This record gives sequence, C-alpha cells and structure tokens, in this order.
Amino acid sequence: MKKLKKINAVVIGASGYTGSELVRILLNHQEVNITALVANSNAGKEIGEIYPQFKHFNLPALQKLEDVDFLQDDVAFCCLPHTTSQEVILVLAQNYPQLKIIDLSADFRLDDVSNYEKWYQHKHEAPEIQAQAVYGLSEINRDKIKNAAIVACPGCYPTSALLPLIPLLKNKMISEKSIIIDSKSGASGAGRNLKQGNLFCEVNDSVKAYSVGVHRHTGEIEQELSKAFGAELQVDFTPHLIPINRGIISTIYVDLKKGFNVDDLRNCLKTKYEDEYFVNVIDGEPAISDVVGSNFCVISIFEARTCGKAVIVSVIDNLCKGASGQGVQNMNNMFGLDERTGLEFAPIFP
Amino acid sequence: MKKLKKINAVVIGASGYTGSELVRILLNHQEVNITALVANSNAGKEIGEIYPQFKHFNLPALQKLEDVDFLQDDVAFCCLPHTTSQEVILVLAQNYPQLKIIDLSADFRLDDVSNYEKWYQHKHEAPEIQAQAVYGLSEINRDKIKNAAIVACPGCYPTSALLPLIPLLKNKMISEKSIIIDSKSGASGAGRNLKQGNLFCEVNDSVKAYSVGVHRHTGEIEQELSKAFGAELQVDFTPHLIPINRGIISTIYVDLKKGFNVDDLRNCLKTKYEDEYFVNVIDGEPAISDVVGSNFCVISIFEARTCGKAVIVSVIDNLCKGASGQGVQNMNNMFGLDERTGLEFAPIFP
Amino acid sequence: MKKLKKINAVVIGASGYTGSELVRILLNHQEVNITALVANSNAGKEIGEIYPQFKHFNLPALQKLEDVDFLQDDVAFCCLPHTTSQEVILVLAQNYPQLKIIDLSADFRLDDVSNYEKWYQHKHEAPEIQAQAVYGLSEINRDKIKNAAIVACPGCYPTSALLPLIPLLKNKMISEKSIIIDSKSGASGAGRNLKQGNLFCEVNDSVKAYSVGVHRHTGEIEQELSKAFGAELQVDFTPHLIPINRGIISTIYVDLKKGFNVDDLRNCLKTKYEDEYFVNVIDGEPAISDVVGSNFCVISIFEARTCGKAVIVSVIDNLCKGASGQGVQNMNNMFGLDERTGLEFAPIFP
Amino acid sequence: MKKLKKINAVVIGASGYTGSELVRILLNHQEVNITALVANSNAGKEIGEIYPQFKHFNLPALQKLEDVDFLQDDVAFCCLPHTTSQEVILVLAQNYPQLKIIDLSADFRLDDVSNYEKWYQHKHEAPEIQAQAVYGLSEINRDKIKNAAIVACPGCYPTSALLPLIPLLKNKMISEKSIIIDSKSGASGAGRNLKQGNLFCEVNDSVKAYSVGVHRHTGEIEQELSKAFGAELQVDFTPHLIPINRGIISTIYVDLKKGFNVDDLRNCLKTKYEDEYFVNVIDGEPAISDVVGSNFCVISIFEARTCGKAVIVSVIDNLCKGASGQGVQNMNNMFGLDERTGLEFAPIFP
Repeated sequence: MKKLKKINAVVIGASGYTGSELVRILLNHQEVNITALVANSNAGKEIGEIYPQFKHFNLPALQKLEDVDFLQDDVAFCCLPHTTSQEVILVLAQNYPQLKIIDLSADFRLDDVSNYEKWYQHKHEAPEIQAQAVYGLSEINRDKIKNAAIVACPGCYPTSALLPLIPLLKNKMISEKSIIIDSKSGASGAGRNLKQGNLFCEVNDSVKAYSVGVHRHTGEIEQELSKAFGAELQVDFTPHLIPINRGIISTIYVDLKKGFNVDDLRNCLKTKYEDEYFVNVIDGEPAISDVVGSNFCVISIFEARTCGKAVIVSVIDNLCKGASGQGVQNMNNMFGLDERTGLEFAPIFP
Repeated sequence: MKKLKKINAVVIGASGYTGSELVRILLNHQEVNITALVANSNAGKEIGEIYPQFKHFNLPALQKLEDVDFLQDDVAFCCLPHTTSQEVILVLAQNYPQLKIIDLSADFRLDDVSNYEKWYQHKHEAPEIQAQAVYGLSEINRDKIKNAAIVACPGCYPTSALLPLIPLLKNKMISEKSIIIDSKSGASGAGRNLKQGNLFCEVNDSVKAYSVGVHRHTGEIEQELSKAFGAELQVDFTPHLIPINRGIISTIYVDLKKGFNVDDLRNCLKTKYEDEYFVNVIDGEPAISDVVGSNFCVISIFEARTCGKAVIVSVIDNLCKGASGQGVQNMNNMFGLDERTGLEFAPIFP
Repeated sequence: MKKLKKINAVVIGASGYTGSELVRILLNHQEVNITALVANSNAGKEIGEIYPQFKHFNLPALQKLEDVDFLQDDVAFCCLPHTTSQEVILVLAQNYPQLKIIDLSADFRLDDVSNYEKWYQHKHEAPEIQAQAVYGLSEINRDKIKNAAIVACPGCYPTSALLPLIPLLKNKMISEKSIIIDSKSGASGAGRNLKQGNLFCEVNDSVKAYSVGVHRHTGEIEQELSKAFGAELQVDFTPHLIPINRGIISTIYVDLKKGFNVDDLRNCLKTKYEDEYFVNVIDGEPAISDVVGSNFCVISIFEARTCGKAVIVSVIDNLCKGASGQGVQNMNNMFGLDERTGLEFAPIFP
Repeated sequence: MKKLKKINAVVIGASGYTGSELVRILLNHQEVNITALVANSNAGKEIGEIYPQFKHFNLPALQKLEDVDFLQDDVAFCCLPHTTSQEVILVLAQNYPQLKIIDLSADFRLDDVSNYEKWYQHKHEAPEIQAQAVYGLSEINRDKIKNAAIVACPGCYPTSALLPLIPLLKNKMISEKSIIIDSKSGASGAGRNLKQGNLFCEVNDSVKAYSVGVHRHTGEIEQELSKAFGAELQVDFTPHLIPINRGIISTIYVDLKKGFNVDDLRNCLKTKYEDEYFVNVIDGEPAISDVVGSNFCVISIFEARTCGKAVIVSVIDNLCKGASGQGVQNMNNMFGLDERTGLEFAPIFP
C-alpha cells in the first residue's frame, strides 16, 4: 500500500541529537522528502556546518520556523525541548490541519495536564492539543497512532521499560506493587547542551546515578503501566549515566503473581512480540551493542535468585527506538506504509 | 605504634591486575619492603616488561614460587586465581608459621567449605586453613583481622554492597527478604585474561548484564549479610560490565522495616562510619569518579518513589578498596600500623 | 543498468569484524542475496550466536568452506587472515571460473610476490592468481576493477593515505622524498583476536605508537605511490592505536614542489574528487566522527607552519571504506551497478 | 636539606583541572601546607562541592583572591587562564616579595612580550614581571629555576616535545629545518570549560586534528628549541584531541645531521637523562598508560623507514608532568627540597 507521492517532512529542531538522528534515518527512507530543517539559532547555516556527517548530502539549509511554508508538508517532526515544543505545536495544529505532527519532546506524553505540570513544573499551554495526542509506543498503541493527528513519542527510558512490562501487567502476571527499574543510559540522552556534567572528562571513566526516585520519566512510565494494569500504580526508577554515546539498558525487578513462573512470563512476551519486527525476546544476555544504530529493542527475562521474582533486561538505542526511530516507525504507520520502511538497517558493531 | 623494622612483603601473582595494583600501593607505603614478586609464567622477567608503568622503579625481578625464601617475609599477598590460591596457601601456612597471609582470591571467603564447593564447583583442598581464615572486610571485622594469620579479602562487588547493608541489617532497619543489588563494574574486574568478551571492541560502547541471579559473589554477600542479620537470607544480585577500567557502582533497593524512615537509615550509616577514614556517607549522588585510584567507599541513601523503600548507592574502586587497597588496609591492621598508612592518596580525577 | 537477477554473494570469514561489517552492508543492499556465510571454526552456528546484532535477520547459518556450493554464486568476499586467504582463493579461482573474488586480506595487494614475501615473511602460494589481481582502490583503479576477476581490496591505513597522496604525486606537486604519514586507528583494525594488547583495559585510556617504521602496510602504500609517481619511493609511516572501535585519521606531512602552494594542492584534490560521491575534500578540520559507519573519506589540506610544507588530514571508517564498504563499492563496479548502491547511508553520530 | 617548617602554599584557580591536580599532589606532599584555595566564582563553597573526590579531605574552603592573606604564604601556584594570570601575578609580585610564584598559564612563558602578543592576541600587562620569569622545564632549566622568584611552567604539549628535542638540537645531531611534532592529547587539556567540542558525545569515539599549523604552543616550542640550537628555527606542530581524560603522546619526526645515526641520538638522550628520575629513555614503544597519574616522561627513538630520519615518541600525563606535577617539581627545587618529594607515586594502570 505505497503512496504514489513521497511524504513531505519537516524536521523542527534539527540541531539537537534527536534531530540529527531523524535526518540520518529519513535520508535513507525511500518514501520521504525532507522539505525543511528548522533550527532557529543556526538559521542560515547548512546542517553540514553543525553536523559534519551531513556535509555530503543534499539537504535544505537550516531555517527559522517562521520561514517555513508548512502548507506543502505532510508531517512535522518536532525535536524541540519540552515547553518550547508545545508552543510551536499549538500554532502548527491550529494553522495546518493537513499536517500530521510527531513530537519527540515530553510535552504531550502525559494525558492529564495537571500531571504534566507536576512533573515538569510548567503550566501546560496547549491542553486542547493534549486531548488529541496519542502516546506513540508503536507496538502497543498501533491502532490509535494510525489515525492520530498528533503523536507524542515516548521517552527513551520509558520505551525500554514499557515494552517488557506492559504485557506482563496486562496479563496480571506480575505484582503492580514492587516494580524496580534500574536504567543506564548513554550521554546522548542529555542532548547537545552545555552543562559541566556533560563534558567528556566528567562522563568518561565513571558512572553515576542521578535524579534517584524523582526523574521526570517516572510520570510517563507510571501512566502507561497504570493503563495496562487497570489501576494506579507507582514504580521505583533509577537512571544512571554511562560513558557511551548511545544506548540504554534497563534491568527490571518484578514480583511474580502467584501461579506464574518465569517461563510463563517469557512465553507471554514471546507471544506478544512474535510478529513484531523491532521487538525481540531472546534467551541470552542482551548487551547495548546488540542494538546500537538500529530500531530494535531486545528483551530477556531471568529467574531471580530469591523466590517469586524475575529479572528483566531490556536494551534499545536511545536515539533510535528511544526517539527518532520510533518517530519514523509511527510516521510509517500514520501514512499507511509498512512500519519497517526505512528502518530495517542492522545495528552497527563493533 | 610503629614497627622499627619494615614489613617484608611478597606479592604472589604479580602479573594480574590486582597484583600490579598491590605493587603500586606498596611502592608508596613507607613501612613495607617488597622482597619478592612471584609470577610463574613470567619468571625471569622484570615486572616492567609486563607492566611498563613500573619500569622506572626499583623492584625485584619476577620469580617462580619455588624460588622464594619465605623465611625472610612477614606477609604474603596472594593474588592468584581461585583454586590455585588454596594450593599455594596450604603449603605456605604449613611451612612458614611466621608468615601472615592475605588472600585476594575467593578461596577462603566462604566459611563453610560445602558452600564454597557449591558456588565454585571445586572441592576445597584446604579446609583446615579455611577454619582459621577471617573475612577481611576491614571496617566490619577489624578486631578479628588484627589477630588473624590468614585474611580472605572480600570480593569487589561484596565490598560495595556489604559496607552499607551490614549496619542496616544488624540494626533490623531493613527487611531481609527483598534486597536487590544492581551492580556495575569496570572491565578490570575480569582480570587480564584473554577472553573475547574482554576485548576492547566488545566492551567499549556497550553495557551488559551477566550471570544474572547466579554470580558467585552472591554466596559471599549472603553469608556476611546473614551473619549481620542473625539468620539465613538471600539477595538478588545483578552484575553489569561497563566500559571503564576501574570502579564499581552498586545501586541497592531495600524495604524499610516498620518504624524506620530513610533519615533513620542515613543516620545509622553516618554514625557507624563517622570515624572511618575510608567509608564516607554523603548526601548527594556518588559517582565512580569520586573514588577511582583511592581506597574510599562513598555511600548515599535516597528515599524511593514507592512507599517504604530506600535506594542506596555505593561506589568503590574495584582494584583498590575492592581488592588490593583493602588488602593493605588489613595488613596495616595486622601489623599494628595505623590502617591509613600508605593509603591516604586522593582519588585521581579527571 | 540494473541486473535483472540479484547477485549471489558468499562471505568467507564471516566471524571476523570485516566479515560482520560486510553482512551489515549486504543486508541493506537491494541487489544482493547472501547465499552462504563461511566460518570454519563456528560452522553449524547461526551468525546471531557470535554476532547478536544479526539475531533478528534472516541469514544462512555459518558453514564450513567445503560445504558451500560455489556454482550458484556470483561473487565471493574473502575476509580471511593473510596466508589463509591465498590458499582458499587459489582453489576458488581454479574451480569456479564464473566467480568474481573480492579479497579483503593482504594476500594479493602486492604486485610482486617477492615484495609480499619480504613484508609478510611467507612464501606466496598463488603467484599465478597474483598476476590477475587488481588493487581495489575504487576511485583510482575503477577501470581495471570493472573487468577484474579478482580484486585485492586495499588495507585500511593505505586507503586513508593513498586517496589524498596519489593525485598529488601524479601531478608532481609534492616531493617524493619526504612523505610522512602519521596514522591513528581504532581497535577494530586489529580484528577479533585474543591478544593481551587488544583487551579493553589495555587499549582504553591510552594511545600507543606501534610497528614504528616497519608496519606491513608500508609496502602497499609505497607500491601504489611509486606507480603514481612513476618511480620507486619510500615513506615514513607510523600507526597508532587509539581507544575507539572504528575509524582512522591520517595526518600527512608533505613537501611542496617548487611552483606550487597549498591552494594548488587543494584544487588538485577538489578537482580529482569533484564527481566522487565517497571522497570529499573539505576546508575545515575533519574528525573521525564525520565518517563512522559510512563509506566516506574526508580530506583536508592545510598550510604548514614551516615554509614549503603542507599538512593533509584524511579520515575513514577502517571497517567500511577501509575494508568491507570499499569491497562492496568494487562489487558494484564489477557487476555494472552504480557504485553507490547499498552504500549511501549516512555516518552515525553521535 | 629539609626545611624545618612546612611550605605554606596557596592554589589560585582551584576549580580548574590543573588546580584540582595540584591539590591532589600537594595533599600527598609531606612538606607542604595548603593554606588557601582561591576560586572567585565558587568562593564560599567547599572544594568537595565542585570536586567530590576531595570531600573527605581536610582542606580550606574556596575563597576570593582578595580575601587571602598572602603574607603567611611561601608559594602561590597560579592556575588561572592566560591574561587573567598576569593581572593577578602582577599584583602579587608587587605586594608580596617573600612569595615565590609558580604560574601554570601561558602568560610568562614567552621571553619576548611582542611574541606573546602575537600568539595570544593580547597586550602583555606585566612585562616587568616577564623579565624575571624563568621557563620552568625542570630538567633543562634547573639552575635558573632554583633561584627564580617566578617560574612559568611549560605547556603540556611543549613539555612532551622539548624534553627529547632540546638535547638533540643542543648537540647538533638533528636538522633544525624539518622538525615535525604530531601530538595527541586527552580532553583534560581543554580544561573544564563549557564548549560544545568538549562534550562527551563529541569527543568520544572520535579523534580530530585542530589548530593545524597555528596552535599557540608553537611559539613556546620554537622559543626553547631556538635557544637550544642557538638560532631561530620553526617547527610543524599538529595537535589532536583523543578520547581519553589524561595523557599526551607526541610522535616527532627529525632529520639526522650527517655523521649521526639513531643509536647516537638514543645515547645522547640516555646520557642526558641518566640521572633524571622523571625522564626515562626506553627501547620499546611507549604508551600513554605508562605514565597516567604520574610525573614521568617516557621517551623512545626509532629508526625511520626513509634514510636519514628518526622517529621519536614521547609520553606524559598532561595534567601532571605537563602542568601541576612539574609545578611541584619546580617548587621542590625552589625550596631546596629533593625534586622528587611528594611526586614519587607510580602511574595508575589499568
């Protein structure tokens, strides 16, 4: 079911890491034209000036948002920081009804704007858009995404945790009361921002836990798990910064519900993801290097040492399946393409 | 209470990473003479040939074990692989009663030889020595170590987990039923062995969980926690390999016993370690880089998101406090020196 | 000029890094069927068992060389170590006249077998094949490669050095007497072999020069530069090992011939590579990250501080343009495809 | 010849990497009291707040320059950026005649202020101090340093290049006309400044050449080499940024003067540095890991492939021998201590 005409796509926020990852993917996508690259503070420059890896590609120059003619576009990817994103999307949604919007920020991920305001300490400026937004976890919300006008792509940590946990909670195989998610992420998750903690010498040769118990992605994880479970729940989530560029590994500790063992859980996940190209449930020990540069999520589940527990390990590339890759997967779905289109490239190793 | 004469020390297994770390520390220790360096397969070479960082130091050549005259020595550090270590120590203990032995392998860490045989799949060949061995967690077993003839230095992962957990269990502040230890270690923990998984390209740019639920250090952690608690308990322990040379960070999830909150736990740890030079309980977020190259352990404790839980973060340098540094700390204690002697160097950062 | 039928390709030596890089590229190549993967010591396993990144792809199991039916194949990529490669290729060439052979080893790179024997200390076992082999530097030897039955792909270091130097020597713009090539390579260049020097802890946090003045790639560099210049010449080449997985940067010092300045050299290179997709001459400072994961070579040239000299900087991905990518580029040429087919993916950054 | 009283030392600019390295070294130095730590923008904080590795040490709080009573101090280490350094030192020198000053910036390294103004594009504000300053390359200028009131410690790159080159030029063993210095430095050389190019993801997995032919350290290298040679000379110097925290490796290409071979050069260096503790001339291939965390410089010299050339490889820790370690070595000299005092610690590896 191919479209005759290519999809015209604009990338807003092209000077960040998720923006550049989108460009990398879309360049390889045979059904997409990149019509515009928006980067207000770098407007006028070629993208090759700020991302030399694109110097040799035929791409539009960076421009200001106000200079883009969105009438020609079919889809806008929004890679702006949260709070900025909602301002821009509000305008786009009001003025360009033909435009499908795929947001990679946190601005439209939380259904309840008061929940957003609690986690992000910012008054939501587009609650009417929020009402239309679909949470873009591709394998879980496929049907809703298909018809959505605006898709809020999940955060990187949530993607790694939700894919294994949602089916298990839906099937009441694990307790909702003691879910521990210990995640480790590469430095690109922090973006291209100038903070001392992001400097090479500060990240290299070290690992640190941060935002212990209070990280913003907790809200998103709890919202989606609560939906799957059918009632409110809370989780313990600890993110760590590791000295790699790309990738997340989440080690998740769960309590089995009576009557289930680890094999049951594994079978549940294998069945759920049997026909999913991008989610693979394996028997061994996943490593981040199994997925870097690709849109895959690899999951494994192990019997814990203590009775009645299981340990789940899940790996993704935070910039790809955890951000831009999942965004393109959603776009494919929204435009009636095979979800795999333009995303079948293998991980890069070593 | 300084000795008039320096301590004569021999390092057995000088060609591994813990052996070389011992040499680094002892070179800087004003009360120690290194009398011999044993490395059977490299015997005859200078240590500078296999560890160029020592080329410029005045050190004895590597020799075979059989060529060492242990009669002149006061202490032997044994940095051999497990199973080899017990063979050697059995002979030393039987022939050189004057010699204090500090073992860095796993061979004498488990009180019960049948427990050893279960975890290490090897019949213990020196059970009579096991009976005399003291588990060398310096801050916890100081009094026993002082008079021990043989000290079994704790594993690296156990050191990072036991220091925060023992006081909390002893004081019945946390449940013994749901202790989760999620640890991340640098590659030097695997030693200088030729395994594909230790190659640069395999470790770099990745993180993986391994031996999930079945790692051998579990036995040692459970033994010491059970002693502290006063009854048998089990833990869930997941080690991860991270792309750094040195350092461990353990993120530990515990359930508070009724009547206690996180402040109580923090106070318990602060009180316990108030006068300990090498163990520091802080309020912020510890990073591995806070301790690399030093004998410090830094611990912090956080309120978890879910009710009744706490998250403990603990960092050490696996080769130093997690191995050779703690070995020297124990030696100081065994010879009546201030425990800090030769170990007061600051971490190296960046 | 597309072929109606896909090209049937076999990868011999699929368990090494260049083998796995070939698989990564060919999976994405729309005109190629991978018919067989040869890995004698891993025969019977799935490639996903030794390279987990391929677990989710539909690929043939690894097999022994003797079990492959080469009659069905159009091309064989040979990713074996030198000396093994020539044995295998000799048999293939004698028995399968329809088969085009692309060798990634050093075995057929040196025109003169006595030169091979000097650099590789091994008697050449297939001199008659050598006579037919074409040196596969794509942009330089395109016409010969097109009709070759066997192509010897250049080494990684030589590729990075020859692309800028050949046009300058051909045009007599630089002296042949004082060419200094200071190269820095990621660890994948050493392959997946178990050597102490390749362990993570040995490579990480360090850089070393090795084989100073005597590295085997020197022979290959000198051969091709001598051809370009029209007379025998020698170069000073120093390789360094750097703590990254992929990538080479070569910093090259040359003496200008009288009458030429740096602008002339830059123009020469820009003109030469104007229509080349994979070779880009830029004005800024190239970084390895500009090319990782891609088949690009980026070159820049700078005025030196001292009079009459220039500094050239050249970067490639050693596994891609420096090995498997160039191999596929040559295959495209040999089979009448656009050389870019399957190779247009952008570098991966960060 | 020990002083009875400890040396009172103040560190100005304690919040940068060279400042923190000084603190690390001085903490271990038995003849020094750290009386004050100056960091204007962090004044009032404990140093442990900005460098957690020092949390457990007894150190003065950070303070403003104006709040320091320099009358009590014997020596001031100045770790400020260039241009700021000269302002501060001018005031100190005028007001505290008892105070010896050891500057780690570039401000007093160039004898001729017009040369300074050319390389640093800044008018020198303290030419009268310049006249008294001694270039603090410890092994070369020992006698002058001994009696200096102000010592300008060499840059990191110059230290690595000058130590091998000065003796060879002094002895007219190499040509002054074709010295090429290809250097590779870890990221700490760029300091703790917030620049995009210093972010983890930008440095990791890459190497780049920068400031090709125009790096400011060139002026300093040429000045000292010209003095050694006895006439003005120029060099080609190319710095590279490598993904490690600490360490420099300089690969240096020289032309032999007629009558000399590589053995002669090696002997010259071996003789020159025979009695020097910190400079070691070896026969093998030096690696950065041979010196990290230490004050050593390791040098090796190789026969080049082309006739009449030699390749010299030199490694140092840029923060230690390339900055703060050499600063302390000079202090020892200035105060009549054994130069090795407080600096005999071994490199840290792995």
